[in-house]
Amino acid sequence: MNAEIISIGTELLLGNIVNTNTRDLSLMLADLGINVFWHSTVGDNPARLRESLLLAKSRADLIITTGGLGPTCDDLTRQTVCQVFGTEMYFDEKVKAELEEYFAAWAPNMPDNNLSQCWLPKGCTPFYNTCGTAPGCGFQAEGKTVLILPGPPKEMRAMMAHGGLDYLRKVSAEPIFSHNLHIFGMGESHVEEMLRDEMNALQNPSLAPYAKEGEVRLRVTAKAENAEKAEEMMAPIIALCREKLGDFIYGVDSDSLENTVLQLLKEKGLSFAAAESCTGGLIAKRITDLPGSSAVFRGGCTVYTNEAKNILLGLPYELIEEKSVYSPEVALALAENIRKILGSDFGIGVTGIAGPDGDGVHDVGTVFVALACEKGSFVRHLHLGARSDRSRIRTLSANYAFDMLRRALTGLEVNG
Amino acid sequence: MNAEIISIGTELLLGNIVNTNTRDLSLMLADLGINVFWHSTVGDNPARLRESLLLAKSRADLIITTGGLGPTCDDLTRQTVCQVFGTEMYFDEKVKAELEEYFAAWAPNMPDNNLSQCWLPKGCTPFYNTCGTAPGCGFQAEGKTVLILPGPPKEMRAMMAHGGLDYLRKVSAEPIFSHNLHIFGMGESHVEEMLRDEMNALQNPSLAPYAKEGEVRLRVTAKAENAEKAEEMMAPIIALCREKLGDFIYGVDSDSLENTVLQLLKEKGLSFAAAESCTGGLIAKRITDLPGSSAVFRGGCTVYTNEAKNILLGLPYELIEEKSVYSPEVALALAENIRKILGSDFGIGVTGIAGPDGDGVHDVGTVFVALACEKGSFVRHLHLGARSDRSRIRTLSANYAFDMLRRALTGLEVNG
Repeated sequence: MNAEIISIGTELLLGNIVNTNTRDLSLMLADLGINVFWHSTVGDNPARLRESLLLAKSRADLIITTGGLGPTCDDLTRQTVCQVFGTEMYFDEKVKAELEEYFAAWAPNMPDNNLSQCWLPKGCTPFYNTCGTAPGCGFQAEGKTVLILPGPPKEMRAMMAHGGLDYLRKVSAEPIFSHNLHIFGMGESHVEEMLRDEMNALQNPSLAPYAKEGEVRLRVTAKAENAEKAEEMMAPIIALCREKLGDFIYGVDSDSLENTVLQLLKEKGLSFAAAESCTGGLIAKRITDLPGSSAVFRGGCTVYTNEAKNILLGLPYELIEEKSVYSPEVALALAENIRKILGSDFGIGVTGIAGPDGDGVHDVGTVFVALACEKGSFVRHLHLGARSDRSRIRTLSANYAFDMLRRALTGLEVNG
Repeated sequence: MNAEIISIGTELLLGNIVNTNTRDLSLMLADLGINVFWHSTVGDNPARLRESLLLAKSRADLIITTGGLGPTCDDLTRQTVCQVFGTEMYFDEKVKAELEEYFAAWAPNMPDNNLSQCWLPKGCTPFYNTCGTAPGCGFQAEGKTVLILPGPPKEMRAMMAHGGLDYLRKVSAEPIFSHNLHIFGMGESHVEEMLRDEMNALQNPSLAPYAKEGEVRLRVTAKAENAEKAEEMMAPIIALCREKLGDFIYGVDSDSLENTVLQLLKEKGLSFAAAESCTGGLIAKRITDLPGSSAVFRGGCTVYTNEAKNILLGLPYELIEEKSVYSPEVALALAENIRKILGSDFGIGVTGIAGPDGDGVHDVGTVFVALACEKGSFVRHLHLGARSDRSRIRTLSANYAFDMLRRALTGLEVNG
């Protein structure tokens, strides 16, 4: 089964927003073992939308549209899809009831034009919208499978989780299930090298690596009549990967290092704090992006200047002058002092040069990440490379900080 | 002139990366007055790439490709584009020289397969790569204009800035120049209302609004034989917008509120510091994303917990209990104390509920943003709405903080 994703919305062609839906859907489809051959984007223009749908119909088995489901006159997806597939529409009373309930919560009464959202293709499986107004649906016509989804990323993801993915599993010849192993601290080629034989030999379940924002992921995919059977098939492969990659696997189907750390800290009832120089608040920002972080994050300081390092965290100016601000000693002092000051179980300290300008002595990308805890203090000297840019150096530095914390929390060698 | 952007790379179809190139290019083309009708994405597959190029050739005047310019065998853009347009290739000695110089900087000798990158379409205008290996180019064939650009966003943007945009201006019937006015604190529909007559009446220069991440932008575009003439034509329109929108315009062609603030602080030799509760380091992160921020950012504290507010910033527990942690008083104390502690000219304090869970008393989205400076202290009570999510509430809170600082720095009513 191969798929085409059609994103609908003039705001995408104007560059007003980044299209994250195609990325998110592509990942979900890959997990289902569905090959995505095409992404296309069209504006809110009936003729060009029709042209895109006809083209997709001619070359893909599965067509997924996002956007164009709003209540206004320039939202044309439902009608145009039905025209292209010669499908009649019907008025869905349940959608209407849901919309009325939705509006009752915050508006005196529902605008009439929202009623247009109640019209769906005859014979479809409706997907109700848990965080917006536009319903979506899945249906089959002329040997093709079509999914109609809303444009707002939050609504699209919720709808796939509650309806869309199950629908795709049902219509797939044989449903596909998968897990993603998240690996940090080892490059993609290295992972591939260690598991090349398995990757080449395995058919079902299958094993494939991919790189994602400074990390590597291994996707284990199994075709089976049900989830239970699939889990049975995948278990030994996952075990094998764990055996070969050990500590480098930081999570399974967990979405980020910081989320892994958050869950571990919650389980153990422990807390951390961060003193950031070159990451400048990025570690604090990433952990507090996650709901519930207040339970484990005691707080942090962004100590970009020597004065701030001295005033907020009591670093002696002598230490900074003697050892240089880019030194393991300063990173350790930052970690130990923030831990002491906020009384957290763990303290993180980061200092280094994110660039673009260096100090003439150290290379851009020279970063020291320190972790202080009951067991003692650890520091890591990173060479993130003059060829990565500021944003990548900051992101990787934060990744290493979270990974050191993750390792300490799971009883691993912190500097392993 | 209407355009199609073709993104090439299997990693996009696998969802391994978000496609930011189409967004960035779409914005650039809009500034040039070029309509983008299509985005399409294909993998590193010669047959499907060929099909996409033929389709684009049949429906667009300008075709821009990104990606597939690497030195490996699955990088097929150059050859395939030349086949589709019946253009021969030539070996560009200058590209070879640049590549050798590039490699000399960090590798013993250049891998032979990089030589494949020296082949370009005959008669093209080469665009040399200032931050990577793959050169790009622009050429015209069969009445179409084609731009070939590298996939890495940084390289693509640099190449458009140094060659691509000028090339497009040259081939455009009449070159187009534009400016973007950045507006904060006023909704798109409101901006439209205030300038509707001008938007409808004006042809050249033209005026159009668009919304971008919680802000509104007004694009002023002029067709003229040269930049000087275009500036003359745009000046009165910009003046008119300034007259109507006044303080709400925070910058022209400046890319963000934080960058505007950074430039203002640098000019005036002033500094700020931030004490963040619900924004959790986002303000520090955003200012330190910018090179040179160390000159104006004294540092910050992420004081997520009451303990941190007390220990790091000396807020009395009584104050927090008496007034509630979500109160103007706490926001003001945060701003005033961080300013005092770090001796900065300005202090920012933010407290509020980013959600998803509330405290049962205040609505999610209740945020207090305070600014302390020599003139005194100011606080703003925001209702960011239970219907925006955590990330949007945090982003908007940070936007308001930067905007209050911007207003103080330009002598405006801070709470205007």
